[in-house]
Amino acid sequence: MIVPRTRESRPKFKPFELGLSAPWLHRPPRRLPRPVHFNPREQALVERIKRLKKEAGSHSPSAWTLAKLIPELRLKVDACFLSNPYATNLFLMHLHREVIRPKKLRALLELYPSQNRVIAAKLGRVLDQSADSIFVGNGAIEIIQAVLHRFTRDKLLVNLPTFSAYYEFARPDTRVVFNHLRKEENFRFDPQRYLELVRRERPDTVVLINPNNPDGGYIPYATMLELLDELREVPNVIVDESFIHFATEGPGFAYASVADEVSRFPNLMVLKSMSKDFGIAGIRAGYAVMAPDRVRSLLDNGYLWNSSGLAEYFFDLYSRPDFQERYERERVRFIRNSRRFFAALARLPGMHVYPTHANFALVELQNGLSAEDLVWRMLVRRGIYTRTCDDKRGLEPGKFVRIAARNRPENAYIIRSLRRMLG
Amino acid sequence: MIVPRTRESRPKFKPFELGLSAPWLHRPPRRLPRPVHFNPREQALVERIKRLKKEAGSHSPSAWTLAKLIPELRLKVDACFLSNPYATNLFLMHLHREVIRPKKLRALLELYPSQNRVIAAKLGRVLDQSADSIFVGNGAIEIIQAVLHRFTRDKLLVNLPTFSAYYEFARPDTRVVFNHLRKEENFRFDPQRYLELVRRERPDTVVLINPNNPDGGYIPYATMLELLDELREVPNVIVDESFIHFATEGPGFAYASVADEVSRFPNLMVLKSMSKDFGIAGIRAGYAVMAPDRVRSLLDNGYLWNSSGLAEYFFDLYSRPDFQERYERERVRFIRNSRRFFAALARLPGMHVYPTHANFALVELQNGLSAEDLVWRMLVRRGIYTRTCDDKRGLEPGKFVRIAARNRPENAYIIRSLRRMLG
Repeated sequence: MIVPRTRESRPKFKPFELGLSAPWLHRPPRRLPRPVHFNPREQALVERIKRLKKEAGSHSPSAWTLAKLIPELRLKVDACFLSNPYATNLFLMHLHREVIRPKKLRALLELYPSQNRVIAAKLGRVLDQSADSIFVGNGAIEIIQAVLHRFTRDKLLVNLPTFSAYYEFARPDTRVVFNHLRKEENFRFDPQRYLELVRRERPDTVVLINPNNPDGGYIPYATMLELLDELREVPNVIVDESFIHFATEGPGFAYASVADEVSRFPNLMVLKSMSKDFGIAGIRAGYAVMAPDRVRSLLDNGYLWNSSGLAEYFFDLYSRPDFQERYERERVRFIRNSRRFFAALARLPGMHVYPTHANFALVELQNGLSAEDLVWRMLVRRGIYTRTCDDKRGLEPGKFVRIAARNRPENAYIIRSLRRMLG
Repeated sequence: MIVPRTRESRPKFKPFELGLSAPWLHRPPRRLPRPVHFNPREQALVERIKRLKKEAGSHSPSAWTLAKLIPELRLKVDACFLSNPYATNLFLMHLHREVIRPKKLRALLELYPSQNRVIAAKLGRVLDQSADSIFVGNGAIEIIQAVLHRFTRDKLLVNLPTFSAYYEFARPDTRVVFNHLRKEENFRFDPQRYLELVRRERPDTVVLINPNNPDGGYIPYATMLELLDELREVPNVIVDESFIHFATEGPGFAYASVADEVSRFPNLMVLKSMSKDFGIAGIRAGYAVMAPDRVRSLLDNGYLWNSSGLAEYFFDLYSRPDFQERYERERVRFIRNSRRFFAALARLPGMHVYPTHANFALVELQNGLSAEDLVWRMLVRRGIYTRTCDDKRGLEPGKFVRIAARNRPENAYIIRSLRRMLG
């Protein structure tokens, strides 16, 4: 069941570290991995991937780009981008049954979709938010850009490591300061140290991704509430909850969003990508909950038709109770599988898996194998696309890989492949 | 055949008014139309539509929104939004054959699409432009917003009537000045008067939509070249060619874009929606050709993943010669039909049809029927969605309707319905 967002039913805060801590303990490697020797064909592939990666800047080239530009790769598992494949199945099932088979696809592709406010009104019903406090985006990334360009002024505070768009999309006249999450503390977010930094630096905008990307670290709901209270004086508080559906707290698989705190904290903006939990990155759908005057300010001179017909269909579906119920089952199934996967990852030799509350794990290699060695080998030899974190600020280059959980057979294939490579 | 965009093969400029002028001559109404009496059911429908229209601001609610929120309407023909339905058929045929039937839709919806620069590189090949001078947008409207927010400073000059986004999306600190196209001159663009106004007002940005929306007026290619030369001192010259595929010049059905003038005029930005000529407004696809430093400035802090998987598939298709060839046939077929349709419209009593070089016609009612009367009657009684221009600045309210050309049976149905209503 989805957690109703009313005050009474909020899950109680439990102390940090939920269940997942034990298996992550570091194990020393039993023996050194076999050195990497690519044959000339593999080496040529690696060179082509590296070129594409370089062109893609601080983000990875999409699996779609890779698969099309280098068809020889025979990509089997995309464990680079972060989504729930069961939810993709569910969405596709609905799309086929309700749109493609009854020949309604044409209307979705030919006609203009509804305007931002119309889609917000639909979303408002399921989010239990007033429509005028919802801003619909062409993916969360459009909202990140919109908010940083419109509301942020001279100083932006982001945690490191983080999703790089939060500092890359800042305007040239915005100074970015960083709160370094410490590896030796498992990248755990320390509220006290954070608030001290806020008092010292006086940023006009702070960003909290919860759970954080790329480490999966989670700030519990009660801590978030306390933080919001302490951050009252900061003009813009961005909370990115793109991975919140995977971060359960309290009994069962309930999750807790701070979106309905927007009415209490007019400085709060809660951003949400739909690409992760619903596995539909190709549709580009996201939204944010924020004070109505902020939504108005954004819509006053832009963002009129920024959703596609398919995104609108998705939002329609999302606001239906029958879909919600089916989605809830897939969400829980995915979380269960992901936890098993992370536990299995942590049992592999030669790597340290950091505690995660998201659908991916940050992995530190500890047996001399470099992140690139592992990632290229996995890609070229096993068709598994994972992500080196060499370009992630705040992480020592060469040592970190981010691996996303997929469905059960894919997870098993990733584990088998890693076991083989790590020896 | 598509016109190659090389300098040699450019169609020669011919004096303004190509072929379409004769049938537009105004004819006096033979008798007054029957007064509008809606029954209570119809009246209730009209009230609901008006409410939706009010919520949609200065744009019309999409046919999609109308059809879903008021299913009783039984919408048959969308002659409000502006597209080539034959091209939609063509696109859908390819989509079914290449994506849906071979079960490749999942990849398009699940995975992240390619980044802006990757899609620009594909487009560059078919546009014969260097990839770094192409900016890909989530519909042309995103590019309008991007350009007005990033490059426009204190003064913007737009023609009136126009596509309202060009003044609505201006930043609050930008002053908008207007060049009024004159009804008594058939809304013809007068270059000399325009240049005088530019010299007097000294705007930092000027916008030319060619052909213009909502009247379909066209500035011939040679005039455009002269204008660009005269506008060298204006920092930003936006030319919106979203309807250029319908504006033929010289022999055959060739059309002439100024996109390759960007290398000569670094102040020039040529915007292009794909929604109109390809009939895919629901996909949200557009691009602009502009100087590489402008593209870089936009991409430096935003617009990374602004195309959907379907938009990327469309751009892939668009860059294929086999698709281009098939599309060319549908473009010419549509233009032929549209011309017949506009000629038939012009023969109807009680309305004046302005000369158009686009896929729509601006119609002035002259027999006492108001624009709303006509539009609601068409919608409620015949399921035909057209557009009153009551909210269009620069047009006398209550008198103007914009009617888009559709396929042949739809055009015939529109003509039959109008004939019946106009008596």
